[in-house]
Amino acid sequence: RADGTRLWSTILETAAFGGTPAGGINRLTLSPEDGRVRDWFRDACEAAELTVSVDALGTQYALRPGRDMSRKPIAFGSHLDTQPTGGKFDGVLGVLAGLEVMRSLNDANIETEAPLMVVNWTNEEGSRFAPAMMASAAYAGEFTTDAILAKRDAAGTTVAEALDAIGYRGGEAVGAQEIGAFVELHIEQGPILEAEGKTIGVVEGGQGIMWFDGVITGFESHAGTTPMPRRRDALLALSEFALAAERIALAHAPSAVATIGEAAILAPSRNVVPGRVAFTVDVRDPRSETLDAMEAALQEAAAEIAARRKLEIALNRIWRKEPVPFDAAIVAAIDQAAEGLGHARRRIISGAGHDACNLAGKVPAAMIFVPCKDGISHNEAESATQSDCAAGADVLLQTVLRLANA
Amino acid sequence: RADGTRLWSTILETAAFGGTPAGGINRLTLSPEDGRVRDWFRDACEAAELTVSVDALGTQYALRPGRDMSRKPIAFGSHLDTQPTGGKFDGVLGVLAGLEVMRSLNDANIETEAPLMVVNWTNEEGSRFAPAMMASAAYAGEFTTDAILAKRDAAGTTVAEALDAIGYRGGEAVGAQEIGAFVELHIEQGPILEAEGKTIGVVEGGQGIMWFDGVITGFESHAGTTPMPRRRDALLALSEFALAAERIALAHAPSAVATIGEAAILAPSRNVVPGRVAFTVDVRDPRSETLDAMEAALQEAAAEIAARRKLEIALNRIWRKEPVPFDAAIVAAIDQAAEGLGHARRRIISGAGHDACNLAGKVPAAMIFVPCKDGISHNEAESATQSDCAAGADVLLQTVLRLANA
Ligand SMILES: NC(=O)NCCC(=O)O
Ligand SMILES: NC(=O)NCCC(=O)O
Repeated sequence: RADGTRLWSTILETAAFGGTPAGGINRLTLSPEDGRVRDWFRDACEAAELTVSVDALGTQYALRPGRDMSRKPIAFGSHLDTQPTGGKFDGVLGVLAGLEVMRSLNDANIETEAPLMVVNWTNEEGSRFAPAMMASAAYAGEFTTDAILAKRDAAGTTVAEALDAIGYRGGEAVGAQEIGAFVELHIEQGPILEAEGKTIGVVEGGQGIMWFDGVITGFESHAGTTPMPRRRDALLALSEFALAAERIALAHAPSAVATIGEAAILAPSRNVVPGRVAFTVDVRDPRSETLDAMEAALQEAAAEIAARRKLEIALNRIWRKEPVPFDAAIVAAIDQAAEGLGHARRRIISGAGHDACNLAGKVPAAMIFVPCKDGISHNEAESATQSDCAAGADVLLQTVLRLANA
Repeated sequence: RADGTRLWSTILETAAFGGTPAGGINRLTLSPEDGRVRDWFRDACEAAELTVSVDALGTQYALRPGRDMSRKPIAFGSHLDTQPTGGKFDGVLGVLAGLEVMRSLNDANIETEAPLMVVNWTNEEGSRFAPAMMASAAYAGEFTTDAILAKRDAAGTTVAEALDAIGYRGGEAVGAQEIGAFVELHIEQGPILEAEGKTIGVVEGGQGIMWFDGVITGFESHAGTTPMPRRRDALLALSEFALAAERIALAHAPSAVATIGEAAILAPSRNVVPGRVAFTVDVRDPRSETLDAMEAALQEAAAEIAARRKLEIALNRIWRKEPVPFDAAIVAAIDQAAEGLGHARRRIISGAGHDACNLAGKVPAAMIFVPCKDGISHNEAESATQSDCAAGADVLLQTVLRLANA
């Protein structure tokens, strides 16, 4: 068993890096706060006698030797970056529970056949740099390292510059650290486990995700003198588009979701009819065909609004992540570990994207979920109990032992 | 007659202060660019032997003596600040035509009975600090100087700090410079004169204006895991409110207008359902009762959306400017001056707010409009012809002579 009390105190301790008055964390990837929590993580890993390395995208790998060093390590972990209005558990739980697995094995003097590795993936959240789960995607070969290094945040800073700024542009090539299998513990970020009174979610896969960048180009004009019918108001066009996106998601209920998470008027002024608006769209569903249908419907809505309001709407898909099935053998190992520990459990599909979804494209991978209060995540109010976190860490530990000693 | 060629060249010369690649001007009030154009204006006035003073809100007054110094000066002018996407004529024409009136009278060695004064009012646009026409409102006694000095821009800078930063916090009390009457030349900023082939608009009054600050408080949640019906999406609520505001304005067609000019998501992120949105509303109509009805309808729409979407919408009116009738005698003087010069003209109501609308609360005031291309204003494409600008300056000169020698 993992030491749930020690795990809980590391969660509280590291929450201070970027901690907010409302009890959440604002620790955008590659920010100074992210740099400080990385330093803390490296020191804690080294204190646990792990060998830490950093790759060219800043991902941290901490290795614990096994008896059979010819085997690839069984890896686990998640991410330490957060949303601007992030909570204390999203990603953090998976990395710190991974550290706790190492510490508990050390305490119990347990050696495994395969080596073990805990990983902190760079930029899982995708809030500062798109897409989300960037470094694990590069690890899995979905993007080249150079393509990722060149991505820019809203201020124009590249990933390369941001890595350099906090000293986390590692020397190792992305993918140089080999991994045999990947297990990720995470809060559910949805309401199902809590509603059904289950402690463990045995995650069978992740739904598909599409991200779009949109720009609406109307015409700036005077708020006092321009008659309503002559306006080409970019914000009104966005308003219609946002409501259309909601309707399109509801048309594929209950599974589909669509979100306009960013929307900004260029050169906003109280007495100027908005001429240009930039926005983003996040669309998800567990079925590939539903993603296709939703994309077509969004483009159709954009074209209709643009024609009627006499303005331009450009809607460009910048990312598509297909629905991911997890590895049946690892899913079964998680299920058995949870059963062995006596935890109420159920099979579940992840609504959020996770690094494990990218790893699954390269190595056997799966995930363990624990409940979070009211299904709330990406919010400072995000909350999980100490006992559920401990239960998740126990299942992670038992799963890892099964995989490493198999 | 005024020298239309010289006027045109000063318009082009000063357009360099804050000039944009697209041929417009971005010269927000009390910005460094505004400081530079003020210095230019002071120097030009002093070269024309005017006595320049600056009041505690930065307004510049340039006096030309009259034969009867016991009379209050006949004042004219406008503003040199612009919108972020401003053009070369809005405000600028009125100030530079005022300077041209002084220069032309000097050239012709004409002395007037009453003294004359050209004024550059601080923050007419209202884009950086609300409300618009701030300094002329303080001059007319609608606000105290201290209340205005304490207003803040989006970055938290006060008017007092911004004045100090460009060295334009003058020693003179607001209102210390007495004015006998005020005449303002301006581009129409609407399409009527151009459409009807008139050169001069004889402005009989200005419509009423209300400004609101709004905040929508929903709940941040995960874009991938939060089912559509559980969301409390602040941006979707804003979208419905913006479309409701459009419908409310159209219900009072053709006169009423409503505009959401600013709208910003707090802590925006692609994969976070927006939890908080701040926005502004600008509402106008020539009739007071229509303003009342629109305000009630907007509050009703906000309450309905808030209740249905289970979030909070706060909509606070921060400014109301009643419809303003201009002084009949000055309106008649403008009409006669335009007739004497042989210009096609018509009576008109101003859709935009102007410093003259504030002055009208204290002294006899009225305005002269000239056409602008396609009615476009608050846009870098704003355009007026050299001959229309010259015609406006001529009417201004003749009107001022009538008033000063009466
Ligand atoms: N787990 C998580 O919140 N990941 C961020 C990427 C996403 O939006 O799903
Ligand atoms: N003339 C002008 O554009 N003034 C700005 C204030 C307003 O919005 O009407």
